[in-house]
Amino acid sequence: MCPSKVAEGDQRGWIVPIGGAENKDENPRILKRFLAVAGGSTAEIVVIPTASQLRDTGPRYQRLFGELGARKVEVVDFDSRGDCTDSGRLDRIERASAIFFTGGNQLRLSTILGGTPAAQMIRACNAAGVTVGGTSAGASILSEHMIAFGKEGSSPRADSVRLAPGLGLTNRFVIDQHFRQRDRLGRLLAALAYNPFAIGIGLDEDTAAFIGPDNTLEVEGSGSVSVVDAGNLGFSSMADAGEEQPVCMLGLTVHILLAGATFNLATRKASAGTLARSKT
Amino acid sequence: MCPSKVAEGDQRGWIVPIGGAENKDENPRILKRFLAVAGGSTAEIVVIPTASQLRDTGPRYQRLFGELGARKVEVVDFDSRGDCTDSGRLDRIERASAIFFTGGNQLRLSTILGGTPAAQMIRACNAAGVTVGGTSAGASILSEHMIAFGKEGSSPRADSVRLAPGLGLTNRFVIDQHFRQRDRLGRLLAALAYNPFAIGIGLDEDTAAFIGPDNTLEVEGSGSVSVVDAGNLGFSSMADAGEEQPVCMLGLTVHILLAGATFNLATRKASAGTLARSKT
Repeated sequence: MCPSKVAEGDQRGWIVPIGGAENKDENPRILKRFLAVAGGSTAEIVVIPTASQLRDTGPRYQRLFGELGARKVEVVDFDSRGDCTDSGRLDRIERASAIFFTGGNQLRLSTILGGTPAAQMIRACNAAGVTVGGTSAGASILSEHMIAFGKEGSSPRADSVRLAPGLGLTNRFVIDQHFRQRDRLGRLLAALAYNPFAIGIGLDEDTAAFIGPDNTLEVEGSGSVSVVDAGNLGFSSMADAGEEQPVCMLGLTVHILLAGATFNLATRKASAGTLARSKT
Repeated sequence: MCPSKVAEGDQRGWIVPIGGAENKDENPRILKRFLAVAGGSTAEIVVIPTASQLRDTGPRYQRLFGELGARKVEVVDFDSRGDCTDSGRLDRIERASAIFFTGGNQLRLSTILGGTPAAQMIRACNAAGVTVGGTSAGASILSEHMIAFGKEGSSPRADSVRLAPGLGLTNRFVIDQHFRQRDRLGRLLAALAYNPFAIGIGLDEDTAAFIGPDNTLEVEGSGSVSVVDAGNLGFSSMADAGEEQPVCMLGLTVHILLAGATFNLATRKASAGTLARSKT
């Protein structure tokens, strides 16, 4: 799906992919910042636990965002494609100031929500200014081209990755999560080799990319965000590689960002941001 | 140690780091090519099994190179620093057309050979045109700055890597091996963050970099060679990062090379080489 069009005068809402396993206890700085861009004390958050098959996943985030000070948090589960046309659920989505997808399996999200009124409404809400984010599988689903699954390893192979259409809030990037912890650079590179137009974003656990309406990505959390820009790719052998074969890719630009650093998805420029503060 | 100076009129010999676990049976193409740059049927190869503590390691490579057609293959083990001044061993090194370090523990190589007449002779031989290569630990030892050990993970942390002085055949690159198989990008990036002047070379298993006298690196084998060029690094937070903390690095250039592709260590240009052959 192509990204929803932002109406004239409107600003797209924040897009917030989180790499999974975000700190929920001593230092829930990612969830706090999500709440801040969701409206702070006036936030009305809808938690969508569809990716998960654990009964407690939704209520847990409901409790967390409530304790952090959200005005209202509701769990809206979509357990079947039929649920995605239910007017009660759609009404609750429409009233939200932010939408949060939990972790689980991103193919549950794409197979249940894909092409339904619920997916259309979430896209339209984001285009109209509503914050949409998610963790782990809930991060992967956000972009137009979603990594459904793949293989471990730092270098790309022709069969490293399988893509599926995602929610399509943006087509500027492809997201991968649990990045450092599950050795996923190769599958992200393979996704970029298929078509180098997008920017790869690899999110470590407890690390998030806060992508503002101006397309500036800011990092929050304890790990790093690996940004892979294939825009200047000089050569790739993907088209000629057999299944399981390694892939040659020449001219990748990589930035390892930490909290405080930024990357502009439009200009493709990285900045050290507050990490480069002058000596005091 | 700084690289040995190449005398006027001389050409440095090949430097051949191999990523470990090279195919020795059905398709020993790396060992075959090593033999070719060692002189082919006139090759006299010295195998140094010092990194290994297995009795059979040296004789195994002696047998392999013999079967592939080397004129003479000798195993010269250095089991103590005293061995490194032994004139019999030094004589055999001096007569070799190529020197091959087996795998094992690179710290055994650096602690036993470092600063001895044997190390000096190997450096001088390479500067005078003798091929020097090695696999796994035997690859790591070749450069001036050697990765002694480190931690897994694709993104760099301040404590990802420990460097030690290596044999110093060149200071243009830092080598890591078993690269894809052991998830070692982060420790190579950390090594480059310490001082971005060098080029990082990450060798997959059954994959080798054949670095010619003209500083062109050619890939051989079934996997990939990840070349990380930090020459245009715009920012790194290494100096400010606490132990175990992630490190921000902006502006890395990465090439994933396969057999047929090349990288020039002097000009820092990658080429698809024979992979980019025109349609037939």
